[in-house]
Amino acid sequence: MSGSGEETTVTKWVYSFAEGNAEMKDLLGGKGANLAEMTNMGIPVPPGFTITTESCRYYHSHREPPAGMWDEVQAHVLDLEAATGRGFGDAERPLLLSVRSGAKFSMPGMMDTVLDIGLNDETVIGLARQADDDHFAWDSYRRLVQMYGKTVLGAPSEPFDALIEAAMLANDVKYDVELPAAAVKELTEAFKQVVVDTTGQVFPQDPLEQLQGAVQAVFDSWDTPRAKLYRRQEGIPQDLGTAVNIQVMVFGNVGEGSGTGVAFTRDPATGERGVYGDYLADAQGEDVVAGIRNTSPLSALGETDPQSYEQLLQIMADLEEHYADLCDIEFTVQEGKLWMLQVRVGKRTPAAAFRIAAQLVDEGLIDLDEAVRRVTGQQLAQLLFPQFDPTAPKSLIAEGMGASPGAAVGEIVFDSAVAVRRHAEGHEVILVRPETSPDDLAGMVASAGILTSRGGKTSHAAVVARGMGKTAVCGADSLRIDTEAGELHLPDGRTFFAGTVISIDGSDGEVYEGSVPVRPSAVVEYFENGLEAALEGVNEATAELLEAVDRIMRHADENRRMQVRANADTATDARRAREMGAQGIGLCRTEHMFLGERKAIVQRLILSETDEERDAALAELLPLQRKDFIRILEAMDGLPVTIRLLDPPLHEFLPDLTELTVKAAVAEQGGQTGVDPRLLNAVRRMKEENPMLGLRGVRLGLVLPGLFALQVRAIAEASCHRRKVGGDPRAEIMIPLVGSVHELDLIIDEASRVLAAVSEENGCSLEFPIGTMIELPRAALTAGKIAGSAQFFSFGTNDLTQTTWGFSRDDVEASFFAQYLDRGIFRVSPFESLDVEGVGRLVEMAAVAGREVRPGMPLGVCGEHGGDPASIEFFDSIDLTYVSCSPFRVPVARLESSRAHLGAGGAASK
Amino acid sequence: MSGSGEETTVTKWVYSFAEGNAEMKDLLGGKGANLAEMTNMGIPVPPGFTITTESCRYYHSHREPPAGMWDEVQAHVLDLEAATGRGFGDAERPLLLSVRSGAKFSMPGMMDTVLDIGLNDETVIGLARQADDDHFAWDSYRRLVQMYGKTVLGAPSEPFDALIEAAMLANDVKYDVELPAAAVKELTEAFKQVVVDTTGQVFPQDPLEQLQGAVQAVFDSWDTPRAKLYRRQEGIPQDLGTAVNIQVMVFGNVGEGSGTGVAFTRDPATGERGVYGDYLADAQGEDVVAGIRNTSPLSALGETDPQSYEQLLQIMADLEEHYADLCDIEFTVQEGKLWMLQVRVGKRTPAAAFRIAAQLVDEGLIDLDEAVRRVTGQQLAQLLFPQFDPTAPKSLIAEGMGASPGAAVGEIVFDSAVAVRRHAEGHEVILVRPETSPDDLAGMVASAGILTSRGGKTSHAAVVARGMGKTAVCGADSLRIDTEAGELHLPDGRTFFAGTVISIDGSDGEVYEGSVPVRPSAVVEYFENGLEAALEGVNEATAELLEAVDRIMRHADENRRMQVRANADTATDARRAREMGAQGIGLCRTEHMFLGERKAIVQRLILSETDEERDAALAELLPLQRKDFIRILEAMDGLPVTIRLLDPPLHEFLPDLTELTVKAAVAEQGGQTGVDPRLLNAVRRMKEENPMLGLRGVRLGLVLPGLFALQVRAIAEASCHRRKVGGDPRAEIMIPLVGSVHELDLIIDEASRVLAAVSEENGCSLEFPIGTMIELPRAALTAGKIAGSAQFFSFGTNDLTQTTWGFSRDDVEASFFAQYLDRGIFRVSPFESLDVEGVGRLVEMAAVAGREVRPGMPLGVCGEHGGDPASIEFFDSIDLTYVSCSPFRVPVARLESSRAHLGAGGAASK
Repeated sequence: MSGSGEETTVTKWVYSFAEGNAEMKDLLGGKGANLAEMTNMGIPVPPGFTITTESCRYYHSHREPPAGMWDEVQAHVLDLEAATGRGFGDAERPLLLSVRSGAKFSMPGMMDTVLDIGLNDETVIGLARQADDDHFAWDSYRRLVQMYGKTVLGAPSEPFDALIEAAMLANDVKYDVELPAAAVKELTEAFKQVVVDTTGQVFPQDPLEQLQGAVQAVFDSWDTPRAKLYRRQEGIPQDLGTAVNIQVMVFGNVGEGSGTGVAFTRDPATGERGVYGDYLADAQGEDVVAGIRNTSPLSALGETDPQSYEQLLQIMADLEEHYADLCDIEFTVQEGKLWMLQVRVGKRTPAAAFRIAAQLVDEGLIDLDEAVRRVTGQQLAQLLFPQFDPTAPKSLIAEGMGASPGAAVGEIVFDSAVAVRRHAEGHEVILVRPETSPDDLAGMVASAGILTSRGGKTSHAAVVARGMGKTAVCGADSLRIDTEAGELHLPDGRTFFAGTVISIDGSDGEVYEGSVPVRPSAVVEYFENGLEAALEGVNEATAELLEAVDRIMRHADENRRMQVRANADTATDARRAREMGAQGIGLCRTEHMFLGERKAIVQRLILSETDEERDAALAELLPLQRKDFIRILEAMDGLPVTIRLLDPPLHEFLPDLTELTVKAAVAEQGGQTGVDPRLLNAVRRMKEENPMLGLRGVRLGLVLPGLFALQVRAIAEASCHRRKVGGDPRAEIMIPLVGSVHELDLIIDEASRVLAAVSEENGCSLEFPIGTMIELPRAALTAGKIAGSAQFFSFGTNDLTQTTWGFSRDDVEASFFAQYLDRGIFRVSPFESLDVEGVGRLVEMAAVAGREVRPGMPLGVCGEHGGDPASIEFFDSIDLTYVSCSPFRVPVARLESSRAHLGAGGAASK
Repeated sequence: MSGSGEETTVTKWVYSFAEGNAEMKDLLGGKGANLAEMTNMGIPVPPGFTITTESCRYYHSHREPPAGMWDEVQAHVLDLEAATGRGFGDAERPLLLSVRSGAKFSMPGMMDTVLDIGLNDETVIGLARQADDDHFAWDSYRRLVQMYGKTVLGAPSEPFDALIEAAMLANDVKYDVELPAAAVKELTEAFKQVVVDTTGQVFPQDPLEQLQGAVQAVFDSWDTPRAKLYRRQEGIPQDLGTAVNIQVMVFGNVGEGSGTGVAFTRDPATGERGVYGDYLADAQGEDVVAGIRNTSPLSALGETDPQSYEQLLQIMADLEEHYADLCDIEFTVQEGKLWMLQVRVGKRTPAAAFRIAAQLVDEGLIDLDEAVRRVTGQQLAQLLFPQFDPTAPKSLIAEGMGASPGAAVGEIVFDSAVAVRRHAEGHEVILVRPETSPDDLAGMVASAGILTSRGGKTSHAAVVARGMGKTAVCGADSLRIDTEAGELHLPDGRTFFAGTVISIDGSDGEVYEGSVPVRPSAVVEYFENGLEAALEGVNEATAELLEAVDRIMRHADENRRMQVRANADTATDARRAREMGAQGIGLCRTEHMFLGERKAIVQRLILSETDEERDAALAELLPLQRKDFIRILEAMDGLPVTIRLLDPPLHEFLPDLTELTVKAAVAEQGGQTGVDPRLLNAVRRMKEENPMLGLRGVRLGLVLPGLFALQVRAIAEASCHRRKVGGDPRAEIMIPLVGSVHELDLIIDEASRVLAAVSEENGCSLEFPIGTMIELPRAALTAGKIAGSAQFFSFGTNDLTQTTWGFSRDDVEASFFAQYLDRGIFRVSPFESLDVEGVGRLVEMAAVAGREVRPGMPLGVCGEHGGDPASIEFFDSIDLTYVSCSPFRVPVARLESSRAHLGAGGAASK
């Protein structure tokens, strides 16, 4: 807020393009600022001016435009009249204007454009005479009435479309541009009637009224429910307001010497050097976008108008140098004169992002710091997914939304139960449903991928699939899925049945017939085996990509403050994490050390009725776990390994109550002996209504004598062993689910006794850091006290999210997250990206309080947020020591840590 | 900390009694400060001095007493020698000293007393000669060796006891005091040998060494695990340290003209005016406490020594006036000379507390403000429990700990399953077990009371019973309970079997044979029907009590800031709450409006597959709920009624999954049709792993269209109806489980539309405050944002405790709370008394942030903490508007609000 909104006498509400520049996006919006920038670069831009976002904010808070704004607008229109030698509303030489919205961030859901403002029953004659083209003039007028009626006055589309259809039928033509001028004129009159009939308002003949109506419509469109929802979902502040750009019309549709096009300064799909674009002769910009006629490559312009083409290439080169980035432009040629209508930094694919960033460094336009800022962790993550072999022949059968990335191949199943069964039989399956519901969860788990015909990126299928890391294509609405009949109807009329193999690409949403070969990512190969190995046998584009990734990653590693560790529970995972660049293990879960063949021992432990039985079970577990720890410490030799003592509730090691009860009841009815009553009793006793909020973590360690002591002993003995064989073991012990420093103190007492005993027994001096998870709000709130005892903190942001929000991931993601995303309550699942406002506040409070008591204490994150770009940016901002994430996300975290350090900002949120 | 602990040259480590006063408890401890006070009042106190708590703190931080301390002690001993004309270690006229610990708060678990210091092989002869009593002298020496050996040198008790037993047997006497002097002398020698044998140390002959040993032992006893645990459990800071009192010995055991006693200035059990105490001629203080001989009433002293008796009465009167409170004293008469050994403010029963407070007002010693401070909500709560008729004949069979107050009568059951069955058959049962475990939960629920022979106030049985509000007596260790045989063995040799009726008193821990008549509390009668009605037919003591309660409560109501509302879901509860003095309803749950006969409609709602089915079910619920709300608003006419929209997950209205699955499986096996598959499916779909963290509260309102709209409509229509018939309905709508302001905004939008519609339909203008529960950490953390939309906050401290600590009451109270209390992790269950440090911090943050955005916004509490004294004090301190609690706790909350306002402090924690 400039704060001057009230001082109408001094506020400037309108800027001519010459008065602005690219830095003024807050005030002029993105489009306006870039048009101003080009104007000042001397690039031919149709003259115009911008009404500021501040005017829009004023309009919304005062329910009317600021006093003086229309006067300024009129003064600028006079300037345009002077510049063009035309008159706004002049019957001889009418000045026509376009009105375009332009917020700071581009926003679907807002009013876009009204063209040809200034045409009316009189000026249309003048335009026709001047252009010597009746059809062009009336068609422009027809377009204005239709566009204005719809977007400004709120008329529905259908009556206009129906009238055009009827006219084409009556005149026996295929395209509306082929209609004779007289028919277009008739159509225009009919359109005016539609406006009256459907809106009760008359299409205004006064050009100024047209202009004011269009500007106010742009203002109003800022506040539609759809626009508001979009902003909520994208995290765009609701009070920015939009600017309005008013510009002299230029026409690409006045004959073969005219045309219009869109272009990129490099290939946005591959990152290949060289311009890339589409051109359409004798057309307006909207025709290119609408895709009614086939476009030509950009070079077509070079054939018909080499001078304009050369000028365009030069302008594009200038723009790229000026913006030091890939640019995306729109232009129009009117009778041999080139006009630039828009420029912006272009969107690009992940591979293109890396290649272009490296190219720009080579070209001296940016430095390596900036190259790191130009790529995102999100993009790197995309490069790590397996992809379909791009060289393999593919037969596309449908397209939907790429809802959860990856490449999946499998046979069609229409039913979740069948998916589970076929999967159990060893088949890869793709679950194909109109949409999914919580009933489909088991089926989704069993499937290689999910394909739906309804719903978008926030549908149940999409949200759940992303949560599972499962490939999904959603909303492929050209498919008709009949689950009753077990039939998938293709748009080409064919029908696929259950069992037919298809391939789906969760990145671009494409669906292919048959089994398309899947290629592991070359970038993964690079991380695992290094550049040289990865370069072997790849094509030139991939080689350039790999070299770009290597260069950027090396620079990123040299320029970050936060360390990156991995979550790894086994020696195999630990080795993989090391390959991916992990600087240690931030979370080694020990649950698996109680599972598998050891479950029987654990059950004996749980069912033990005497201290002797219990101790015997614990003693049996000791050598097994010692071996586990030796292997992990060996794989991570010389690097820290943070081992979390047992966290989940004991009943997870027992059979399910419902299943067991059914088994017992059925057996009883059949007169058989079914279930060990001691087991059934234990399962009943340990059954918890809310196991997530039950007897787990440190509570279990305090209540079950010997359990944590066993684990500490196994770790200590493993460390001694590693020391003896010349290793450098660096175990750290982490206590889960601490809520009070008293809990921690009691466990530290116990652990210290065990460590002392093992030291003594093995003649091996042991000093482990003992720290705690901060994963309960109370731990965060009392972190100062806890830091008196804990040598480090590790934020368990999954659990912390669960308790701070009061919902468990298992239960709610399926049942209401999709709706919450749709309604903008979340911008993104708080399990995916840290909720900075709520959970983040606790993390920050705890970090500050902990370091106050224990200066410089290590602070890590071991929730899944440790691998999420936006979250990493936050963790860097509050000065955490490291993030820990799954091995696969380690490169992403390395890159994002550096980006945060280099001040890239807004990592993943926009 | 005075901070001068290091400046040994200026710090004074020892104070004579003449130098202290009652205000110096921090430095001199409770006992020392009061001895000093009496000395300065001119009351005869054996001369002595006090080593400060600061010396103890120094001792613990430096591992040695401060330099100069022993010099000061010796100087004071010289003063005592001068005052008494005796010499410390003097073989002719030995000075004997007592050493007693005395911390600021009295603490079991610390070393208590060593008497007769100064006796050794030489001085014992002098003492015998001087007292002309060999037995007395040697018995004193024997006691010193035993006491010193045990408490200072750490010898075990058993060998001493065995030697005494043997000596009594050998001399054929019944009491040790009857042993001939020669035997006592032999015993003393044997005791010295025991000390050497068991501790490796020799009993020191040097009196100064004895004194130093005893003082250091007192210091050391501050830091024993038992003392530390006690302090953790009671919330006493660990760094206070204890003082040590050293005093000239006086002897009550030197003939019939001597004696010792304890007394109260009024009856601490009933509050009756007049002194009350026990006297034992020819005895030492420890003999009174040990209860070896039967004591006489205090008046016995008057018969043998009227002069000392009169003096004692005068001193007691002076003390009571001086302390302006009931005093608890110890005294000794040595050969006709009265000595006061201790005074402190006396503990009393709840009834006595109220009566004495009112008496002291009448006597002009305190004002009514102080009277309010002198009684606690805890005491008032005790007075509200039913009690056994005190006039009924009772046969006491055992005594245990009063673990959960109340009076319960029922037949003995030894097994939880039997308890459940007998209860279902309509019997009242008392569950009798050595101790309880989580397996007994169902049995505990079914029982009227619980009786255990093992465990204390923090045992499983005690904690769970208190949580349930169930009467319990624990640790009645004179009972032998054989659950296998189904036998309860009484200490008198009798055996009770299952089915025998017993009565247990959970307030005082007494167990009676047969059915003792239970009397409802007269104080409840007073609250329900007023003083006049309650006074009818009661005895004088009860009448005085009721008048005291009335007077104090009236004054409390006139002197409090916080309002007190009640949690009430029905018109009946609402009426009762009004009787108990509630100033509105702070929480009206609406769950019950979906239960009972309406469960069928709710099931149709849940199973509905079309919008029409759903709307039909909702429409059926509307008139029923409207009627509910009309009744509640009528009962609370003119007072606010805060109605919480539906909170629990929908599956609570469906059958249990395990039961249903078993039923289906069994039916299937039997070839029958069992369970509606649509129902089974819905139950399966809605099954949540952690329902507490699932689809409930505002989430349900957002996901199930029409549900909250139905409730709002029912409330709105009910309000219009009440308005039409002349009522003054004051409904407030409260949204549960909000975590983000967006959730609230969406519901407020929906509610506003409904309110507008109902206003219009009924021509009745409706304006309800709409507010939210703050019961998730995230709501508290983002309270500033939420306050932008919410018109009031109500803190749901039950849920907030669950999520802040990450444990659910249902799951953990039984499984580990007892251990947590035992180990001092909790001082009290955080569900009983607010965890100020963790949960309280969130409440305070939210209160501050909310009022910053919306100044003066109403802030309430509707968790069960709203009725807990310590929690109320905290809520008052952070300026909340009201607390809301169960109707029964309303008087407690009224009293405690006033006490907090009047600055009583430490309501329930000590």
